[in-house]
Amino acid sequence: MNKEMTPFNIRQQIRSGEFTGNTSGYGQGFVQGNLAIMPKEWANDFLQFCQKNPKPCPIVGMSSQPGEFMLPDLGQDIDIRSDVPKYRIYTNGVLTEEVSDLKPYWRDDLVTFVLGCSFSFEEALIADGLEVRNITEGVNVPMYRTNIECKSAGRFSGTTVVSMRPMKAADAIRAVQICTRFPSVHGAPLHLGDPSQIGIQDINKPDFGDAVTIKEGELPVFWACGVTPQVAIEQAKPEFCITHSPGHMLITDLPNSRLAVL
Amino acid sequence: MNKEMTPFNIRQQIRSGEFTGNTSGYGQGFVQGNLAIMPKEWANDFLQFCQKNPKPCPIVGMSSQPGEFMLPDLGQDIDIRSDVPKYRIYTNGVLTEEVSDLKPYWRDDLVTFVLGCSFSFEEALIADGLEVRNITEGVNVPMYRTNIECKSAGRFSGTTVVSMRPMKAADAIRAVQICTRFPSVHGAPLHLGDPSQIGIQDINKPDFGDAVTIKEGELPVFWACGVTPQVAIEQAKPEFCITHSPGHMLITDLPNSRLAVL
Repeated sequence: MNKEMTPFNIRQQIRSGEFTGNTSGYGQGFVQGNLAIMPKEWANDFLQFCQKNPKPCPIVGMSSQPGEFMLPDLGQDIDIRSDVPKYRIYTNGVLTEEVSDLKPYWRDDLVTFVLGCSFSFEEALIADGLEVRNITEGVNVPMYRTNIECKSAGRFSGTTVVSMRPMKAADAIRAVQICTRFPSVHGAPLHLGDPSQIGIQDINKPDFGDAVTIKEGELPVFWACGVTPQVAIEQAKPEFCITHSPGHMLITDLPNSRLAVL
Repeated sequence: MNKEMTPFNIRQQIRSGEFTGNTSGYGQGFVQGNLAIMPKEWANDFLQFCQKNPKPCPIVGMSSQPGEFMLPDLGQDIDIRSDVPKYRIYTNGVLTEEVSDLKPYWRDDLVTFVLGCSFSFEEALIADGLEVRNITEGVNVPMYRTNIECKSAGRFSGTTVVSMRPMKAADAIRAVQICTRFPSVHGAPLHLGDPSQIGIQDINKPDFGDAVTIKEGELPVFWACGVTPQVAIEQAKPEFCITHSPGHMLITDLPNSRLAVL
């Protein structure tokens, strides 16, 4: 598939089954979103969880009412049942299936949440001339469980998962400035420097993703991560729930710049 | 003197000789400025030096023409010859006198520069709930010579002097956000973490000001400092030059909030 295609055309190819891969690098300049779909009776708690924890769980969009699968606010003709390359289906908190089409599973009580993801701010960092190590090294960003408690809401609770990008101090300061403009894609870093202060025992052993090189004189810089709500969902164990498969995101028609608050 | 007095009333007391002390804590909420006054033939180089090095040398105001001693843009009836509590006079780069009235020394070729100072951003940090250690400990902020070269302009050159405030990482991140709004009072920090990366050998031995406690788990956070232009002036050795005495600043009528760019 041509990486220069518009988000609409990419979604059409995803819908037709032509494209089923990782969306990283596609639809550059446009917001990609993490997906969480669950029954109405869980959705209110989850919405409150996101509102109380906006750094790890920034809501970029949601369906207008239960059962609604079109998301016109996020782009032209988006059908959330078919326009994401791969979905994960959880039953009672356990991953039971990975599918590329949700139509056979759709229910009239399902509420869709689209959450901001780090692709948007990584693009802004790179555009400013900063290095993003996981991109340079061609691996997944390293992610860690921390001891930073989320504010709980109903049946949803847990600790914050963070992603890490190593930087020189001056670049870390610049990254704080850049990411502050993008609160709906995790915003400014939560922490930098000593990993043990947020409960990370071994920086070379991420809980998710891949380790990256930390060079002499660099500080690890930590951002709240979209895996946080997934962990909260796994712990809450709704009887039915759908997420995207890691890296297989919804590509919206929203320019990344549209998320900038300043 | 009553710390609640308006900047205008404080300046009147300074002018009359009633007040000759340190201005720290007075005129809260209003911009205080560092002072540099020099002959026209040096002033163009100095202006260029400030423009090339805006973080250590942020110009808040300057006189409209050589010889002009009133600064109406900075406040009501400001006469720069008498409205600062203490001045230092340098001859060929050597401190030769400390005086409280410049009238006997005034010349028709003198150009006045008022540069932003850290008091304004310290106030913003405290208003946000952050601790500023030098204020808590009631001492002068610690300042250090670094290996960060300024861009030279004409006869002015030198390395950057920084001030340091220790903070926990999350507070340091918040401080970057707050100070970014105030580019004309040194802006965001230049560095944080390992002091040796910017050429500071012993964090407990500042080159100017006083050492402060750095608690377990805190990072030193470094800002460009208004002592930088003073050091550049001392090195350039203009045949005649005037600065304020450390801590004895010009209190303007500009609210600190007026310096915020956002």
